[in-house]
Amino acid sequence: MSPSKISEPHWEEVGAKKRASLEASLPKEWRVPSDLLPHESQTDVTNWAETSGWFTPEELSITNSTAAELLPKLASGELKSLDVTKAFCKRAVAAHQLTNCLSETCFERALATARARDEELARTGKPVGSLHGLPISLKDNFKLKGLDSTVGIAAHIDDPADSDSPLAQLLEAAGAVFYVKTNVPTAMMIAETVNNVFGRTVNPRNRLTTSGGSSGGESSLIVLRGSPLGVGSDIGGSLRIPAACAGLFTIRPSAGRFPVRNTRSGMPGQEAVLSVNGPLANTIDDIELYSKSLIGEKPWLRDPKCVPIPWREVELPKKLKIGVMWHDGMVRPTPPVARALREVKAKLEAAGHEFVEWDPIDQKEGNELLGRMFVADGGLTIKKELDRTGEPWRPEMEAYSVARDLTTSEMWKLHLERSEFQGRYLDRWTKAGIDALLVPTIPFNTVRHGAFKHVGYTGVYNVLDYSATSFVTGLTVDKSIDQLNGYEPLGDICKAVNDDYDAELMHGLPISLQLVAQRLEEEKVIAMTKHVLEVIA
Amino acid sequence: MSPSKISEPHWEEVGAKKRASLEASLPKEWRVPSDLLPHESQTDVTNWAETSGWFTPEELSITNSTAAELLPKLASGELKSLDVTKAFCKRAVAAHQLTNCLSETCFERALATARARDEELARTGKPVGSLHGLPISLKDNFKLKGLDSTVGIAAHIDDPADSDSPLAQLLEAAGAVFYVKTNVPTAMMIAETVNNVFGRTVNPRNRLTTSGGSSGGESSLIVLRGSPLGVGSDIGGSLRIPAACAGLFTIRPSAGRFPVRNTRSGMPGQEAVLSVNGPLANTIDDIELYSKSLIGEKPWLRDPKCVPIPWREVELPKKLKIGVMWHDGMVRPTPPVARALREVKAKLEAAGHEFVEWDPIDQKEGNELLGRMFVADGGLTIKKELDRTGEPWRPEMEAYSVARDLTTSEMWKLHLERSEFQGRYLDRWTKAGIDALLVPTIPFNTVRHGAFKHVGYTGVYNVLDYSATSFVTGLTVDKSIDQLNGYEPLGDICKAVNDDYDAELMHGLPISLQLVAQRLEEEKVIAMTKHVLEVIA
Repeated sequence: MSPSKISEPHWEEVGAKKRASLEASLPKEWRVPSDLLPHESQTDVTNWAETSGWFTPEELSITNSTAAELLPKLASGELKSLDVTKAFCKRAVAAHQLTNCLSETCFERALATARARDEELARTGKPVGSLHGLPISLKDNFKLKGLDSTVGIAAHIDDPADSDSPLAQLLEAAGAVFYVKTNVPTAMMIAETVNNVFGRTVNPRNRLTTSGGSSGGESSLIVLRGSPLGVGSDIGGSLRIPAACAGLFTIRPSAGRFPVRNTRSGMPGQEAVLSVNGPLANTIDDIELYSKSLIGEKPWLRDPKCVPIPWREVELPKKLKIGVMWHDGMVRPTPPVARALREVKAKLEAAGHEFVEWDPIDQKEGNELLGRMFVADGGLTIKKELDRTGEPWRPEMEAYSVARDLTTSEMWKLHLERSEFQGRYLDRWTKAGIDALLVPTIPFNTVRHGAFKHVGYTGVYNVLDYSATSFVTGLTVDKSIDQLNGYEPLGDICKAVNDDYDAELMHGLPISLQLVAQRLEEEKVIAMTKHVLEVIA
Repeated sequence: MSPSKISEPHWEEVGAKKRASLEASLPKEWRVPSDLLPHESQTDVTNWAETSGWFTPEELSITNSTAAELLPKLASGELKSLDVTKAFCKRAVAAHQLTNCLSETCFERALATARARDEELARTGKPVGSLHGLPISLKDNFKLKGLDSTVGIAAHIDDPADSDSPLAQLLEAAGAVFYVKTNVPTAMMIAETVNNVFGRTVNPRNRLTTSGGSSGGESSLIVLRGSPLGVGSDIGGSLRIPAACAGLFTIRPSAGRFPVRNTRSGMPGQEAVLSVNGPLANTIDDIELYSKSLIGEKPWLRDPKCVPIPWREVELPKKLKIGVMWHDGMVRPTPPVARALREVKAKLEAAGHEFVEWDPIDQKEGNELLGRMFVADGGLTIKKELDRTGEPWRPEMEAYSVARDLTTSEMWKLHLERSEFQGRYLDRWTKAGIDALLVPTIPFNTVRHGAFKHVGYTGVYNVLDYSATSFVTGLTVDKSIDQLNGYEPLGDICKAVNDDYDAELMHGLPISLQLVAQRLEEEKVIAMTKHVLEVIA
């Protein structure tokens, strides 16, 4: 932003220009004619691609494939990266028109990269790396040279990155092709995807509902197969919440496994709870493939926050010991989520695994610690950016606008409280001797726009820095059985969440759960999730 | 401390009582009669044990042994833990009388543990663990049930620990025997060992000089063979500085390798630069033995700050690439240290290893960042403890007394500066493709009491969280060649340090250097140090 413009509010003006420039970046040949688009009253747009006739059978075949299906064909030359990239570009543009999921595009770079991949394969006979020729979408906070990373804040418009984030560099070195970045909420600190620059991203499974946040541009894009694999980030649930809202797989790794350097943070320098990033995809196999590929690139040589732990093959114990937590003491999960917990547990027990009940006694403290750490600077770091264009606080962020900037000596005390909490949780875990916790990802499937409450089910594991997946159970909401009957609310938020539950609206939506393992057990939690999926299939 | 006493200064009174109670805890049969002690004018007391006649040949034989020599004999029953423990207790008491190195004793616990070790071995035929029956000394900040951890602050007197630190629990589970804790400077934030409770610990190699800080009670004790192996901690050099001042080996591990939970911190909750702990010993083999044993106990099951990285055997490249830094741009090393750098480099080159010059360009910023992080709370956290007994600031800690408590938003900016610094350093390291840096540990051998200046050679690697050893080169100061001839001071501190250099006073003292590897490369830096020692032997 030019300093001369700081004097009066101009966030709406620059935001409108930014939106126009995003629209202008969508090539005409990929833009769906308006008469072909579904009426805005159509809530579920997931079958539009197949039914609209807008895509060729080849395009559908490519974009309906998973990364694991595409990669061998790309590596062998059976599929050209250029064709695959073009197909995903086209489908991503359509996804954006259906859900408003993109924030930036770099189609020219994408086509140039894809051509280079094809040429290198033709010349050398060898793929560039384990992700040869695969389009990968990135959340807006990752930097790509020449593109903004606004993270939904007007002041960051027209501040293009000088260089790619190390994460992007490593993925590109492994063969990936970048083509779009995706929308986020303001500063990535809202559990839905809405901001004053790009507006709101909607859930393609039901456009009246949220695809979650903060990686909700990714989740909408991937569900619509506008991307085979995307990268989001998570500081309180921002990967797992959109995964659950949209019906996708993800892993929230522990800090240090994937590189975070030179990415745009919503709260730069905040370290009491660490932001991490990870993949979102339609299958757990693609989550594993991404994780293994990225770690294979030795991110610790590029990011001082990464730990030098190579990918470790794991052998799971024959009999897993799993803690199940029916509720977190704050919010009871809505009927479909509670049913999924029961059914998944029953199937795992039938397969010989052992369950223990996990007391939610520590959850409330963990959730409160997270909230206090988020606003520890009194919201000043974000406010300073908002003020640069006179942008107002989003109503969802009221807690930031009223908080106080703690002193460092106060912050040290908060660190101590958090460390004690971490120690207590670890002691219980070690004493119980469990391999994992099976808990809700969110207490519902998704919610109507603006109604998201309670990130406690995910956020506590950010405070603990545990590895966790959110996985699609294969179960869907059935309004005939998932009715809210008598229940005892655990408090006001519990009541509000369950009052919001609408079996009719949720009917047919996929139900996800969260599997939590210890810190830095990414390989194990993925292996356990794969096993759970086999058992409950 | 009882709250009723807060009203007026009483730090001198409680300190005097504490000193008296420490003295009273030394059993008469182990206390050296005053007529047998060397005159206080005798500066080097390292040969006193052998020459005084106070110890039996058996006691000398035991206590002159390394941990690696003792452990097989303890495990086989050739040596009784009780005999070994008694010998070290007796020699530790003498070491204290010679250098004022102890802060706490628990001889009854020691003898009971030792007896239990012997009984278990007799009953089962098996040692308890890899440290079976070995006495290990602990720096004052580690908690042992029933003992204070004053860290040199009067307010912490009469606040005995409820339980052992997890580090102590794990070492004890591996077979260790605890018998003494050792003196530190106030809050462990001075590079010499001096505080208002226990006074000053002196260097047994020359009692006019410091044994370093903050783990200087340990270094004096171990040099005098009052302990075969001790555990210290390091946030700016507090392991490496005393190792170098006293002529010992140590490793400063990266954060997360050894457990820190439930230890007394000088600045509890400070996390911008992480305090770590590690062993001090007379040989590098004992450093390795300790590290391997402790990690074998899986500290990550007990401390949420530990990373689940088991001990990894390393194979070194045949040809190491080592960066040498002749000075850090702030303080030129004194003649003996500069000579050791040249001689060690020459021998390693002759053995086929490759050297590159390491530009000190980043050192000053790293050193300044460390200083700013130390005083980020305006010294309030320490001051609050001092105020409880009216204890004054030590003059060495003036920077704390005049600092300002930053706001959290300011602290976040400091975190960003530090992270950028870490990234820049890593990039240079990766680009240079080096295995290690060979640099001074401190710019001198040791100094007269009160004259310690400049922790920059160690502190920068705390900011970076790199693994580093300080090792004894085998070279000693030779006043006939280590004369300060013409040199160009790099600044006021450089001039002050070199003005302080006194070849006569330093003559004969061992010269140490620092070998620095990347983050979490503890196995590699130990293996490289062992190789360096073989080459320069």
